[in-house]
Amino acid sequence: MKIGSTRIEVVIADVKAKIATVIYLPGTRLPSVRAAAKNHSFSPSTVVEAYERLQADGVIYSRPGAGFYVAESTLPLSLADIAPKLDRAVDPLWVSRQSLETSDNALKPGCGWLPPDWLYEEGMRRGLRSVAKGSASVMSEYATPLGLLELRQLLTRRMVGLGINAEPSQVMLTESGTQAIDLICRFLLTPGDTVVVDDPCYFNFHALLKAHRVKVVGVPYTSTGPDVDVFAAVLDEHKPRLYITNAAIHNPTGATLSPATAYKVLQLAQSAGLYIIEDDIFADFEITPATRLAALDGLSQVFYIGSFSKTLSASLRCGYIAAPTAWVESLLDLKIATGFGGGQLAAAVVLSALTDSGYRKHMNAMHLRLAKARSQTLPRLAKLGIVPCLLPQAGMFLWCQLPDGNNAAELANACLAKGVLLAPGNVFSQAQNAEHFMRFNVAQASDARIYEVLAESLD
Amino acid sequence: MKIGSTRIEVVIADVKAKIATVIYLPGTRLPSVRAAAKNHSFSPSTVVEAYERLQADGVIYSRPGAGFYVAESTLPLSLADIAPKLDRAVDPLWVSRQSLETSDNALKPGCGWLPPDWLYEEGMRRGLRSVAKGSASVMSEYATPLGLLELRQLLTRRMVGLGINAEPSQVMLTESGTQAIDLICRFLLTPGDTVVVDDPCYFNFHALLKAHRVKVVGVPYTSTGPDVDVFAAVLDEHKPRLYITNAAIHNPTGATLSPATAYKVLQLAQSAGLYIIEDDIFADFEITPATRLAALDGLSQVFYIGSFSKTLSASLRCGYIAAPTAWVESLLDLKIATGFGGGQLAAAVVLSALTDSGYRKHMNAMHLRLAKARSQTLPRLAKLGIVPCLLPQAGMFLWCQLPDGNNAAELANACLAKGVLLAPGNVFSQAQNAEHFMRFNVAQASDARIYEVLAESLD
Repeated sequence: MKIGSTRIEVVIADVKAKIATVIYLPGTRLPSVRAAAKNHSFSPSTVVEAYERLQADGVIYSRPGAGFYVAESTLPLSLADIAPKLDRAVDPLWVSRQSLETSDNALKPGCGWLPPDWLYEEGMRRGLRSVAKGSASVMSEYATPLGLLELRQLLTRRMVGLGINAEPSQVMLTESGTQAIDLICRFLLTPGDTVVVDDPCYFNFHALLKAHRVKVVGVPYTSTGPDVDVFAAVLDEHKPRLYITNAAIHNPTGATLSPATAYKVLQLAQSAGLYIIEDDIFADFEITPATRLAALDGLSQVFYIGSFSKTLSASLRCGYIAAPTAWVESLLDLKIATGFGGGQLAAAVVLSALTDSGYRKHMNAMHLRLAKARSQTLPRLAKLGIVPCLLPQAGMFLWCQLPDGNNAAELANACLAKGVLLAPGNVFSQAQNAEHFMRFNVAQASDARIYEVLAESLD
Repeated sequence: MKIGSTRIEVVIADVKAKIATVIYLPGTRLPSVRAAAKNHSFSPSTVVEAYERLQADGVIYSRPGAGFYVAESTLPLSLADIAPKLDRAVDPLWVSRQSLETSDNALKPGCGWLPPDWLYEEGMRRGLRSVAKGSASVMSEYATPLGLLELRQLLTRRMVGLGINAEPSQVMLTESGTQAIDLICRFLLTPGDTVVVDDPCYFNFHALLKAHRVKVVGVPYTSTGPDVDVFAAVLDEHKPRLYITNAAIHNPTGATLSPATAYKVLQLAQSAGLYIIEDDIFADFEITPATRLAALDGLSQVFYIGSFSKTLSASLRCGYIAAPTAWVESLLDLKIATGFGGGQLAAAVVLSALTDSGYRKHMNAMHLRLAKARSQTLPRLAKLGIVPCLLPQAGMFLWCQLPDGNNAAELANACLAKGVLLAPGNVFSQAQNAEHFMRFNVAQASDARIYEVLAESLD
């Protein structure tokens, strides 16, 4: 090895070591060639050569006239890097980003929420006006650590209707349903733990769990809940710490947990010491309440969470956790440490809108409107050979199989190019075996253009 | 060893192993004596004895008639357990909890925010009314991932006044200033990293960093910023990843970063590849703007954050990050994964209140009001021998030395018993060497009862 080559490698090793020990972070500008040469007492040409090799390896990149920078891909907590890269069309974060970024007028049958004019706009306006006239404290002050008492009391009364007995002191308000889940995960999980999810499941669970750097194992979801035999085998083999699932109307399948499955799942969880997050954000869409794990369990190992973004407003951020009593204090400490106090304002608007007599009427009208949208969407999809795996009792989703020979990710890419955002099966699937499935939101599926684009793009 | 004793130890070891491997979490109910006896094929009396020994050791506890439960203290992410336990009076979380939990009428000169009637109530009411009449989209929909464009544009214009040049595409709205810091920490830090803070510093930084399980090193804060020599030595010795500091009016000291110190700190940080979070939540209290690290650095290694909870309302949750361009995309992914979309509503109310012509008048009046409160508080404290370490140019805090022979934590405990919440020095101090100091909030210090209680309690 020539001396020149050794010196170049010294510079390369030095840069790589600083990246590995996170002294240089992605986006860090490297010392200038002149400065690095001086530091090492090498010639500038040695440094130029070293930087060029690092650049060729993708470790750094240059900006003309501005120097060299550490490349993004070395990011320690790039969510994209923790798990293998997926096709953008089946990357859960990409679907979230697309849904959030596309304009109101875009066609997005793959979107996970209702169009704004389906939400409780009038109740929200009334709630805002009432808060605008209300107490200075609600207007200006931090909430107590648990959050607005009146809303927590209301939530416990609503839970009673689902068979869940919680004290207001067990209910903690959060900034959103997602933040509620994240907070519990921060509390329960350490990197390397194993978490069970349904396969398919709400795709943001995958993104969230990546951020926690845990191992994720999927259990096939049937029309009555998770496959109990697989669930038992997974507990045996993987000793998971946590199971995250949707209550009531399952996302994306629209299936309903049966009492027998709920009972078996809970029995297995209890004997394995497995904790459960039961995410019940679609509760108010139900017509007949299904069994809740939190009801059977009595909030002993189940954390029950909810929010109002699917029915009242996604613009007003407010979620909640009903937690086992023993955990409340520690969750509160974590909430304060990572977000400080909550506000009273969002909670007060939610309280006003939920207690207002119009809310029940609004939801009754919503049930009918969704049933109608479902019955209109089904034949339009059927004409294209797209068939639901089951007929949901309620909610906005249809989990459908594509006609033979069609790949959901390819179809989603083709349709996106024509302005239609779809939600291909594999964004929901841990095992990545849902490539022939697609989730449709019937409330976002009325425009005839969607079916034209689908027809053009299907094989 | 008797066989009986061995069997007891088998049961004990089994329970302890399940706790250690987090199969049993705190609050988990242990199998009943009968069930455990059956599992192990031991007699019930063996299990009873094992459970009693575990209980005597504090590993489990019993609830009469309800069985045995794993004790709280074995909690994996109990913030209290990650660092050594402090006297409750100097536990940062305890001061936060007390401040958030005490009623509006309590005397809390230790509180970190203004009384509600000092905030911009009229602007908030106007903002809420205007949103209540505004677009359905603001009322109902998720914001785009970065958050409301008009507010981000306004924030960049405000930053220009401080010499910080940021594009609206570098500004990301968050649920609060604390959440902004937490998000950056999640992104930058892994457990075991080292973080530098000012000593003293805002006490919630300690709580937040505990939740990230990092090593924290303090650098003494002088009247012009951190002690530069110690700062340099800390970078050398500990190779920290991040420095978190307050911009402008330092909490708790009220000191102002000088241009010379800012320059040196930034130079040291840049050559060490150290990232900085500059928390500027007190910006609008300044009369003459001090130097910002983010301005000198050009948002290359500095993350600049702010919120509106100290001036507009703590009830409306909205904060922001101005981040180095290279980091924005990954921060957005993390924000979506852990909190999904933000709302438009809080941002719209903030936008309305800040652009409303009354805000500047409100803040001008606030400056005068604070100056008056400061001039009234100083002689009242001086009469008790409590002397500020420096006279702040602005803001609400006075960082004071107690008369000889007084310990701040003891004084805080004594005063709390008499209904006065204080903020003793050591809640702010990493080195725990501020036992003779106390932070007073002049806006919360007008009541004569405070000085009576202090006089009674001082040695």
